[in-house]
Amino acid sequence: MEADLITIGDEILIGQIVDTNSAWMAQQLNDEGINVHQITSISDQPEHIISTLNESGKKASLVLVTGGLGPTKDDRTKSALCTFFGTQLIENKEVLEHINQLLIPRGIAINTLNREQAHVPATAIILPNKLGTAPGLLFNHEGTIFVFMPGVPFEMKYLMENEVLPRIKKLFNTSTIIHRTVLTQGLPESILAERIDDWEDSLPECISLAYLPSPESMRLRLSARGDDKEYLSNLLEQNIKELTEIIPGYIFGYEDDTMAGNIGKILKEKGLTVSVAESCTGGNIAHFFTLNPGSSEYFKGGVVAYSNEIKVKLLGIDPQLIAENGAVSKEVVEAMAVAVRQLLQTDYAIATSGIAGPGGGIPEKPVGTVWIAAADSDSVVSKTFNFGNNRKRNIIRSSQTALNMLRLQLLKK
Amino acid sequence: MEADLITIGDEILIGQIVDTNSAWMAQQLNDEGINVHQITSISDQPEHIISTLNESGKKASLVLVTGGLGPTKDDRTKSALCTFFGTQLIENKEVLEHINQLLIPRGIAINTLNREQAHVPATAIILPNKLGTAPGLLFNHEGTIFVFMPGVPFEMKYLMENEVLPRIKKLFNTSTIIHRTVLTQGLPESILAERIDDWEDSLPECISLAYLPSPESMRLRLSARGDDKEYLSNLLEQNIKELTEIIPGYIFGYEDDTMAGNIGKILKEKGLTVSVAESCTGGNIAHFFTLNPGSSEYFKGGVVAYSNEIKVKLLGIDPQLIAENGAVSKEVVEAMAVAVRQLLQTDYAIATSGIAGPGGGIPEKPVGTVWIAAADSDSVVSKTFNFGNNRKRNIIRSSQTALNMLRLQLLKK
Repeated sequence: MEADLITIGDEILIGQIVDTNSAWMAQQLNDEGINVHQITSISDQPEHIISTLNESGKKASLVLVTGGLGPTKDDRTKSALCTFFGTQLIENKEVLEHINQLLIPRGIAINTLNREQAHVPATAIILPNKLGTAPGLLFNHEGTIFVFMPGVPFEMKYLMENEVLPRIKKLFNTSTIIHRTVLTQGLPESILAERIDDWEDSLPECISLAYLPSPESMRLRLSARGDDKEYLSNLLEQNIKELTEIIPGYIFGYEDDTMAGNIGKILKEKGLTVSVAESCTGGNIAHFFTLNPGSSEYFKGGVVAYSNEIKVKLLGIDPQLIAENGAVSKEVVEAMAVAVRQLLQTDYAIATSGIAGPGGGIPEKPVGTVWIAAADSDSVVSKTFNFGNNRKRNIIRSSQTALNMLRLQLLKK
Repeated sequence: MEADLITIGDEILIGQIVDTNSAWMAQQLNDEGINVHQITSISDQPEHIISTLNESGKKASLVLVTGGLGPTKDDRTKSALCTFFGTQLIENKEVLEHINQLLIPRGIAINTLNREQAHVPATAIILPNKLGTAPGLLFNHEGTIFVFMPGVPFEMKYLMENEVLPRIKKLFNTSTIIHRTVLTQGLPESILAERIDDWEDSLPECISLAYLPSPESMRLRLSARGDDKEYLSNLLEQNIKELTEIIPGYIFGYEDDTMAGNIGKILKEKGLTVSVAESCTGGNIAHFFTLNPGSSEYFKGGVVAYSNEIKVKLLGIDPQLIAENGAVSKEVVEAMAVAVRQLLQTDYAIATSGIAGPGGGIPEKPVGTVWIAAADSDSVVSKTFNFGNNRKRNIIRSSQTALNMLRLQLLKK
C-alpha cells in the first residue's frame, strides 16, 4: 500500500519554514512497511487544497496532511475540508473544554481565536491533541483514510504516536521494509565508497544502500524489502557485521544515536566523567553533551575560552606559550585539555582551538584549521584538521571530530 | 510565472533526511517574484523521475531539481535525464579537470566514482560547481527551463547564487512579491494575535500576514504582491512601523537576524563585552553567540557549570546558598551571573539554571522550570519561567529568553 504526505501552507512554498514534519512521518510509516509515494507541499488556497486531496485520494490508501490548523487567521484548511468532504463545522464540547484546560495553567484566557479551534467538521473523527489547542481530524472517504494534523512538529508527533499510528496498524495489512542506519565519522564520501566497494557489490538483491552525508556524520542506510521480517532483520545484521569489520574505527553508532550520546553511555557505564575547554567550537561540544537527558551524570561542565585572556585566566595557559605558538596550535590545545581536566577534576577532557572563519585565516593557518586534543590521566593526544570555510559546518565538524577522538581514546582503555 | 521544485531521493521519502533545499530555493525564487506552485519529493526510480519531469514541464516555466548527483552508486538521475531529454552521456574535460583540482589539496586521489561525475548529458549547459565534484546541468526543453543541482545544500546554494539565479533574472520577466519578516520573542501565538488584531485587520489588501512559530522565536511574515516594487516596499515599511509601536519590546529583529547576532551588533557598536554562566542551557548560549562571525570582539567566553561542584569551584558560589535555595533558584542564578561577570571581566553577563528534563522535576519546581539572570556593573535582574517538558525545546527557549533579557537590559542603557 502507498501513502501520500501533503503539507499545507504558503510558509513552505515561499521557503519561510522547512518541512521537517514530512521526513519524520515518512520514517514512521516506513517502519510500518508503508511506502511513501510522494510528498507534496501546497499553498493554503482552498482550491489548491481540494484539488490535491482529490488527486492523492485517487492513488493513495492513506493521506496524511499537516498544517493549516492553528489559532491564527492564516488558516483556511477547515473550510476547505468541509467542501471536500461535504460537511459543515460544528462546535465540539470536549475540544472546547480541553482548550480551556490547556490555557488556564499557562495563565492565558480563552479568546475568539482559541474558541474557533473547537469548531470541527461534523463527519470527522476527532483525535484528541493533549499538547495543543487544535485537534487532529480523521475521515474515511471513498476508500481512503485522510488524516489532518496541526503543523507544529511536537503536536503532530504526539498525534501520530498516540492516535494515528495505532489506528493505521489496525486498519492496514502491510508488507515489510526494514531500515538500518550505520553512522560513520572520519571518512569522506568517495573514500568511504571505495573502501566498502566490494562489500556493497556483494549485498543481497533485497538490500539497498544509500549514502547520507551531513556535517555531523556520514550515514549509511541499508533497506531490506520482503515478506519475512525476521529473515530480513537477520540478513541486515549479518551485512552490518561484515561492514563493521571493514571500517571498524569509523562507526560510532546506529540509527538515531548521536556521537555525544553514545560517548555518554560509555562514560556512564564506566563511571567516568568528562569536561571541555572550547575555543573555536564555542560551547557547541558542551551543548552536544547536554542535549542528552541524564548528561549531568558524566558531563561536569567546561570553559568556553573564546578569548586568549580567558585561556590564560581561567585555564592558566602560559601567555608565553600562546605568544610563541599562536592560540591555534598543538601546544596550546594540549595545554587546554590538560588544564580543564585538572581544574574540573574529570577523568577525560577535550579541547579545541581553530579558525572557524570567515575571517582570521593566515597563509600557514588558513580558515578551517582546527587543533583538537583529548586528555586522560596519563596522556594527551592531539591532531590538526581542515574543515573548510563555512563557519557553521566547521563548528559542527570540529565538535564531532573532537568527540570522536575522545570515543577512540575511551575504546582503547 | 510559476516554478516547480522537485527533490529526488529515497532518503527524503523514507524520512532519513529533511528537505531543507526546497525552502531555501523557494525563498530565493520568491525574492525574484517567482511563485512556487508546488514542491514535490520523489524516489530515485528512473520512471518516477521521468514522469514527474514530464508533469512539471507541462505547467511550470521553470523546474528546479536537486538530488541524485553525487559520487556514489545510489544516483540514477543522469541516465534518467538522458532518456527524458533524448541525449547521452559524454565526458567533459573541464569538469574532469575541476574534479582533479578539487581533490588534490584534500589529499584525495581521483577514483572511478569521481571520474564518472565528469560524464554529463551532451545537450546540457554545464553550470560549474566550485564547491563540489558534481556540476549543475541546465536544459531548455519545449519552453521550460530545467535545472539539476546536487542535493548537498552548500553546493546547491553556490550554484543557485552564482549560476542559476543570474540566468533566471535574464530569462524571465516577472511581477513582484516582497516579503518582510518581523521576529518576536516573549508572546505566545494567541496572545500576540489578540494584541495585534486591529492592526492585522487594517492591513491593505495586497499585504498578507502569516504567523510562523518556532522554539527560537515567533515570526510574523508580511507579503506584499503587486507591480510597483518601491510602492510595496514603502507600504510594508509603514505597516511594520505601526506594528513596532504596538509591541515594541517584543520585536528583536527582522528577516534572518538571530537574537545573539543582533545583541552582538549592539555590543560591538558600544564596545561592550559579555560572558555566560550556563547550567541548564549547557553551552548553548555560548554556541548561539559564537555562531556569528566576529563574535570574539564582544563574547569573551563562559563557564558551563553543569554540576554544582563546578558552580562552587569555578564560579565561587557559596555551597550554603545552593543548599538553602537549590541550584534552580533566584539566589543561585543571580550569584552565577555576578560571579562570571567579575571572573571574566566583562560588561554584561547572563546565567541560567533550570530543569531541562525529562527527569529532575519536583512538585515545587516541575520539569521546565528555569531561572535566568542578567547582570551589568550596577545591577542584576532575574526571572523564572516554565518552558515545558521537551528537553531540546526547553534548552532553546531558555537560551533565547536569556538573550532577550540581556537585549532589553542593553536597550535600557
